Amino acid sequence: MNEKNKAIGVFDSGVGGLTVVRALTERLPCENIVYFGDTARVPYGVKSRNTIEQFSTQIVHFLLEQNVKLLVIACNTIAAVAGSKVRALAGTMPVIDVIGAGADAAVCATKNGQIGVIATTTTTNSNAYARAIAERKKSCRVVSQACPLLVPIIEEGWLDHAVTRLTLREYLPPLLTENIDTLILGCTHYPLIKPLLAEETQGVALVDSSITTADAVANALAERDLLNEQTTAPDYRFFVSDIPLRFQTIGERFLNRPLEQLEMIALG
Amino acid sequence: MNEKNKAIGVFDSGVGGLTVVRALTERLPCENIVYFGDTARVPYGVKSRNTIEQFSTQIVHFLLEQNVKLLVIACNTIAAVAGSKVRALAGTMPVIDVIGAGADAAVCATKNGQIGVIATTTTTNSNAYARAIAERKKSCRVVSQACPLLVPIIEEGWLDHAVTRLTLREYLPPLLTENIDTLILGCTHYPLIKPLLAEETQGVALVDSSITTADAVANALAERDLLNEQTTAPDYRFFVSDIPLRFQTIGERFLNRPLEQLEMIALG
Repeated sequence: MNEKNKAIGVFDSGVGGLTVVRALTERLPCENIVYFGDTARVPYGVKSRNTIEQFSTQIVHFLLEQNVKLLVIACNTIAAVAGSKVRALAGTMPVIDVIGAGADAAVCATKNGQIGVIATTTTTNSNAYARAIAERKKSCRVVSQACPLLVPIIEEGWLDHAVTRLTLREYLPPLLTENIDTLILGCTHYPLIKPLLAEETQGVALVDSSITTADAVANALAERDLLNEQTTAPDYRFFVSDIPLRFQTIGERFLNRPLEQLEMIALG
Repeated sequence: MNEKNKAIGVFDSGVGGLTVVRALTERLPCENIVYFGDTARVPYGVKSRNTIEQFSTQIVHFLLEQNVKLLVIACNTIAAVAGSKVRALAGTMPVIDVIGAGADAAVCATKNGQIGVIATTTTTNSNAYARAIAERKKSCRVVSQACPLLVPIIEEGWLDHAVTRLTLREYLPPLLTENIDTLILGCTHYPLIKPLLAEETQGVALVDSSITTADAVANALAERDLLNEQTTAPDYRFFVSDIPLRFQTIGERFLNRPLEQLEMIALG
């Protein structure tokens, strides 16, 4: 198989990574995509590093068997905890992760060097965004806020709801009083409430990790002359380790298109 | 060991069952209690029946080794899906579960025979409360409402918060328009927002599964002459399969006392 025609492999602990797939389909409409969501073992957030590394290894082996040309870690927890493990397994294959892509974009976007991050409790506690930003630009200051309710609210589908707005008014003020001019959406669920976030953070630049990740993938493929030049419709395949309640509904909301070619597969 | 001095074994998929432990310590202050919360594998809600039966079997074996005299299934999902498996493993030992206890109390409480149930999506979809109520009194009508946001809101600690009130005003009206006079709190987390639920369901009798379960345990022990008569302070032991973020804080809120004698143990 021509290297360029191989698929992009995207993985996440569950359904959230589909926002990255959505951004990839818009940014790179000629690329084939294989997605793996570990829905049987989600959430990874509360699991130990060893366990997350072990699960990630299984997923990477599965995607490598699917003949991919690039890997995307579309899960903040995996990126924070098992990023180097995944890179070691991938060898020379490029690996893009949501945290690195978000940090790159935030460092470019900020003018005053004050960057806010909203994320799940685990990602916040890992301090991974602060580390990634410090590696890129020492002068930036990062303030973080854990927002544990946003994922369940988004999965409930309350994307433009009074409850969501009120919840944001609880979570955002500690960041806004720190005079941030840039806010990283540090969870793959959050792009779905971007309009509401924009209203509640007027004037702050929002870094949408799904879009920045798609940009990073486009750059990595162009650099290596690996962009797909096919003119036929691309192939999208979705694998999950379990099909939980409401998966189709939630998945299609995240993906913004019908979720076809969905297969269940057991790992480990 | 004197049979009466043995502990009550209580188990749940996570932290929620601690509300049942709290009700037990208040209703039966002389009883020893052993708790197991499967925090490494929570939530059970999205898992298959086979998996839940297998996990429940491991937990029951563990509790039987702790020399208990009665088992309490303090988890609606386990009660709905693996109740008969647990009873088979327990042999002649009494087994009390939150669904049976809640159904008993609701059938006693209702005057007009219209009973509402709020619960997680899995418990709602299992239809277990409607079945349990039909077994007890055919003339009752049960209307259910899945409230997926309430568990994360309660774990966030927003027990008396505008977000919680607004969320209830979304979930409760479909039940209230059905003219229910009794509402079962069909999730072990919900007793923590009982004051707010009472305000938002004025005149409706609330069936608190933790209290009804403690009553059912008291009756079962009294019937079998197994009530503990010790005058020394009772012994409470808490086992979990993982100690996740914020476990101590959330656990103590549920238990309403310091969470001492906490041990981690791997099952399976």
